[in-house]
Amino acid sequence: MPERIGSISELRSAYRHGGLTPTDLAERVLAGLSGADGGPVWISTVPAGQLLARAERLAATADPATLPLYGIPFAVKDNIDVAGMTTTAGCPDFGYAAVEDAPVVRRLLDAGALLVGKTNLDQFATGLTGSRSPYGSCASVFGGGLISGGSSSGSAVAVAAGQVSFALGTDTAGSGRVPAALNGIVGLKPTRGLLSTAGVVPACRSLDCVSVFATDVADAVDVLHAARGVSAADPWGRPLPAERVVARMPGTLRLGVPHAEDLEFFGDAGQAVRFAAGVQALRGLVGQVGSVPLQSFLEAGELLYQGPWVAERLAGLDGFLREHPEAVLPVTRSVLETGRRYDAIDAFRGQHRLRELRAQVDQLWHEVDVLVLPTVGTTFTLAEVAEDPIGRNTVLGRYTQFANLLDLAAVTVPNGFTAAGRPASLTLLGPAFSDTTLAQLAAAFTAASRATPAAAAPADQAGTELPAPTRWVPVRRPYPPPR
Amino acid sequence: MPERIGSISELRSAYRHGGLTPTDLAERVLAGLSGADGGPVWISTVPAGQLLARAERLAATADPATLPLYGIPFAVKDNIDVAGMTTTAGCPDFGYAAVEDAPVVRRLLDAGALLVGKTNLDQFATGLTGSRSPYGSCASVFGGGLISGGSSSGSAVAVAAGQVSFALGTDTAGSGRVPAALNGIVGLKPTRGLLSTAGVVPACRSLDCVSVFATDVADAVDVLHAARGVSAADPWGRPLPAERVVARMPGTLRLGVPHAEDLEFFGDAGQAVRFAAGVQALRGLVGQVGSVPLQSFLEAGELLYQGPWVAERLAGLDGFLREHPEAVLPVTRSVLETGRRYDAIDAFRGQHRLRELRAQVDQLWHEVDVLVLPTVGTTFTLAEVAEDPIGRNTVLGRYTQFANLLDLAAVTVPNGFTAAGRPASLTLLGPAFSDTTLAQLAAAFTAASRATPAAAAPADQAGTELPAPTRWVPVRRPYPPPR
Repeated sequence: MPERIGSISELRSAYRHGGLTPTDLAERVLAGLSGADGGPVWISTVPAGQLLARAERLAATADPATLPLYGIPFAVKDNIDVAGMTTTAGCPDFGYAAVEDAPVVRRLLDAGALLVGKTNLDQFATGLTGSRSPYGSCASVFGGGLISGGSSSGSAVAVAAGQVSFALGTDTAGSGRVPAALNGIVGLKPTRGLLSTAGVVPACRSLDCVSVFATDVADAVDVLHAARGVSAADPWGRPLPAERVVARMPGTLRLGVPHAEDLEFFGDAGQAVRFAAGVQALRGLVGQVGSVPLQSFLEAGELLYQGPWVAERLAGLDGFLREHPEAVLPVTRSVLETGRRYDAIDAFRGQHRLRELRAQVDQLWHEVDVLVLPTVGTTFTLAEVAEDPIGRNTVLGRYTQFANLLDLAAVTVPNGFTAAGRPASLTLLGPAFSDTTLAQLAAAFTAASRATPAAAAPADQAGTELPAPTRWVPVRRPYPPPR
Repeated sequence: MPERIGSISELRSAYRHGGLTPTDLAERVLAGLSGADGGPVWISTVPAGQLLARAERLAATADPATLPLYGIPFAVKDNIDVAGMTTTAGCPDFGYAAVEDAPVVRRLLDAGALLVGKTNLDQFATGLTGSRSPYGSCASVFGGGLISGGSSSGSAVAVAAGQVSFALGTDTAGSGRVPAALNGIVGLKPTRGLLSTAGVVPACRSLDCVSVFATDVADAVDVLHAARGVSAADPWGRPLPAERVVARMPGTLRLGVPHAEDLEFFGDAGQAVRFAAGVQALRGLVGQVGSVPLQSFLEAGELLYQGPWVAERLAGLDGFLREHPEAVLPVTRSVLETGRRYDAIDAFRGQHRLRELRAQVDQLWHEVDVLVLPTVGTTFTLAEVAEDPIGRNTVLGRYTQFANLLDLAAVTVPNGFTAAGRPASLTLLGPAFSDTTLAQLAAAFTAASRATPAAAAPADQAGTELPAPTRWVPVRRPYPPPR
């Protein structure tokens, strides 16, 4: 097994105090790539000579004390442009040679990071399984035939396997959170617009979000700050308001936990136990805890694949799909083509309903600061997904697919393992621009989890009920239905 | 000719210092209604006994010094609910008995205002002419067979004729500005969401805006402040940020004037002369003046009727239109039915384009604070509109229809008369929440116009060029086209 590359903070320390040079690091990265058996993780890699040359130039021209990501190796999902490399979006016939770096990539390079390559993904970033790619299906680093999750499958696996310190994904429906969960790493899905989507192949353009994978919450936040910025070519860009850069302290936060009846683990009692344990740990960190309904979140999420937003995916792809239907995987094609069922009236009606749901959720943020959810209700093997690729994809999206529709930020963190050895994860969600506050709580949770390892959590207690929240948070009645 | 009711400030003074009572006022209002020949102005009026009873109750229970709209008579466009009255939206077969007051009406009543009745409109608020109503066509108070403008035709004429002190309209494409222009009054189209659209028959739900007609800018602002507020039933509601309640002083403002080549008066040289004179007067009031391109505004405006947003009108009306096609005017039906041409892909593509255009316009607000435009390029007679009802409607919307798509606030004020005796008007526009700043400049402009009456403006100078702006404001290049 090749050596793990290490986290950003580990490498930073090694550069400053341990005598590590970018060239040493590049050689270790190259050894890790050739030694790994994660064949389908990478769609293309930077040639070895080029990576070494960049490392040498960095060493010759820059100072590890001033560049925030000096010599940190990273991967980029292959739906994000890197100048001089092909962008495939997981579809070889769609591939094009990118002329410019996407602004989000350019900022990371300018911060001193070393690009290693472009990673595998569910085709057109449409899917949550990691098994919808002509480049092959990724698998979870935890083995057992488990899926990697997707669509940012390669980016998550590259980080989890220690091939790079961080990676960029994209997250429209959960593609930056589900694979983080299934590979035991951190997934930061920032507020939409903080990371430019210029130079990113659109999935749902109005909802697309570049996301960050790392092994550590603080690392993900460092990447967010290095990469964020409004670019002229991105009409969806929004700056992080200055007063939101500094996080609120966990002890001041009101945490929302779902009503027990809104939780669904699809029969996976081990995940239910882990979620209860995670909530229990969070209770010790926050100021208040209350129970909240998930109805508005879940209904909003259904608009994405069971509603007119599928047509938004066709806004960019319809021409290609009509001209090259055979170039697209059958499962992807069958999902995308449902977008043709909707007319413009449906699209506006969906948006009106979304607006109502969003207003309900916005009310909720007057009562809680952070919502905790399981990232996924259960996990699957590649064989299980192959049996029902669309149905099991829908299961995976239950707790993620509403976030961009409702303009939420999210941080996904590991939450130990079930008694059956499957990875568990939880996601903290909050309103737009709550990113740093979510990250602060996520970091505190991770630190507490390390102090109390998952093995010390209650053993598999099938049917264990969530403990009732200590404080009930009254939630306003749902909106009156439209006239 | 019946006595004019007077402005809010005149009535306020008369109540506090002149011995006027609400009952006196109600009697004057009733005399004005019966004496006016503006038959099609009103669709329904509050019964005389009821109006008098309300006036008496107000006198008995309230204090003119504490209620901001004590005893001020007003009209409401008949697409806004008033409890106990029928809401027709200009279509008798669509009419329904409203059970509750729209929140915006309720707030005005709570502020002491006296509701006189419900006014005529272009059917379903679809049109800018005032001649698309089965209740008859309104005409401009200036005679000569001129149209009143629409869709809030009755509300504008009721104010301009002095039957009420102010009126509510709605303004999706210009319905609160065009009839203000054609009747020589003030039209305030607030930032979307400041006035609740709950209880308003939707036109384009995501763009609809309740607007205010008054004879005086200060009156319109008083009504805005009395009526504004977020209501639970309105998911589009937004509060006015506290720091935007106070206006910026005109002398601090950078005024944008359109590039000369972007102005189009459709051959109406008199309107061109008046606009130039208005700009000249504004120059003396603001801090800086620069020239700006209108391209992004005009392209955005075309999305409304020549793009997928027509389908948004059908989101609420499609069922009624299919079941009762004969209940809808042929011109209105032909406009609405174009919405069926668009599929959901078109809707999302339109929204993507709008987002790009809005980002361009948002950049412009870094360089100017206020944009001045003619409200309409030219005016028409009823006979001219009858010749080409859709084409001439499009002409009337050139300078108004983009405002809600681009999230702008607007204040329309009279700008004298052309040598041919037709009313001229200009509109000040700014970004969301600039309402009070626009109003402050509009009030200064109105005061300056009174000091220098329109009659003293240069006589009809066909072909007069706009004077070149004293300072050029560089405008960033348009966005790169989408990939």
